[in-house]
Amino acid sequence: MEDCIFCKIASGEIPATKIYENDVALSFLDLHPVSPGHTLIIPKKHYENLLTVPENDLKDIMSAVQKTAKAVMKGMQVEGFNLAQNNGAVSGQAIFHLHFHIIPRKEDDGLEHWPHKDYSDGEEKEISEKIKSNL
Amino acid sequence: MEDCIFCKIASGEIPATKIYENDVALSFLDLHPVSPGHTLIIPKKHYENLLTVPENDLKDIMSAVQKTAKAVMKGMQVEGFNLAQNNGAVSGQAIFHLHFHIIPRKEDDGLEHWPHKDYSDGEEKEISEKIKSNL
Repeated sequence: MEDCIFCKIASGEIPATKIYENDVALSFLDLHPVSPGHTLIIPKKHYENLLTVPENDLKDIMSAVQKTAKAVMKGMQVEGFNLAQNNGAVSGQAIFHLHFHIIPRKEDDGLEHWPHKDYSDGEEKEISEKIKSNL
Repeated sequence: MEDCIFCKIASGEIPATKIYENDVALSFLDLHPVSPGHTLIIPKKHYENLLTVPENDLKDIMSAVQKTAKAVMKGMQVEGFNLAQNNGAVSGQAIFHLHFHIIPRKEDDGLEHWPHKDYSDGEEKEISEKIKSNL
């Protein structure tokens, strides 16, 4: 898609520090890492987010995620990573071309986790019904 | 696996507020939500994390993620969501049975994003080589 920075990376028009690619997907270092070795995986074709990518392409993207994550773990000598993927501007998605983040993690790296809450009585049932009625 | 709470949810031994299931995967509400409608997707079989699940099962899990996420968006009337998946204790993984989080998001919900940094000169190249040598 015109004016999409990730399409331009996929086509080679804009350079990136590539890590891995298969027929469908490509991984490269995030320029503004949450932690060293923070890597992005994108489909080469333009899909806006997780909801619009066909299942078969998603399979190959996830294969690239697995392959890349294994190499990130070994290469960065870390014992874990967060996989993150944002959908919609309200979620923090900044580039509207589907991308998965691999964020390498170490003990005491100071990265915070999402805050958790509890449901009030009956709220869980009510919410699940709202969701299930949309399956 | 014995003593795995998600295996017990998959087998029905422990109750959960189920949202969706296919042959391989199951989704249900997180009991301690980051936001209302926070949903987990797990494989019915026990896999510790993203690195140990076979590609074919991952395909069906991601299909359940897509199907669940679409219903969460409509049911919760939100315009976005974060997909998150933690690997290893250092990443915040608390239950060692692969699970994906769908976290519904709204504007001004106060949820913070990961902090980003920049690489120093040459650091990006050095890091990419460390990772690529492990592909």
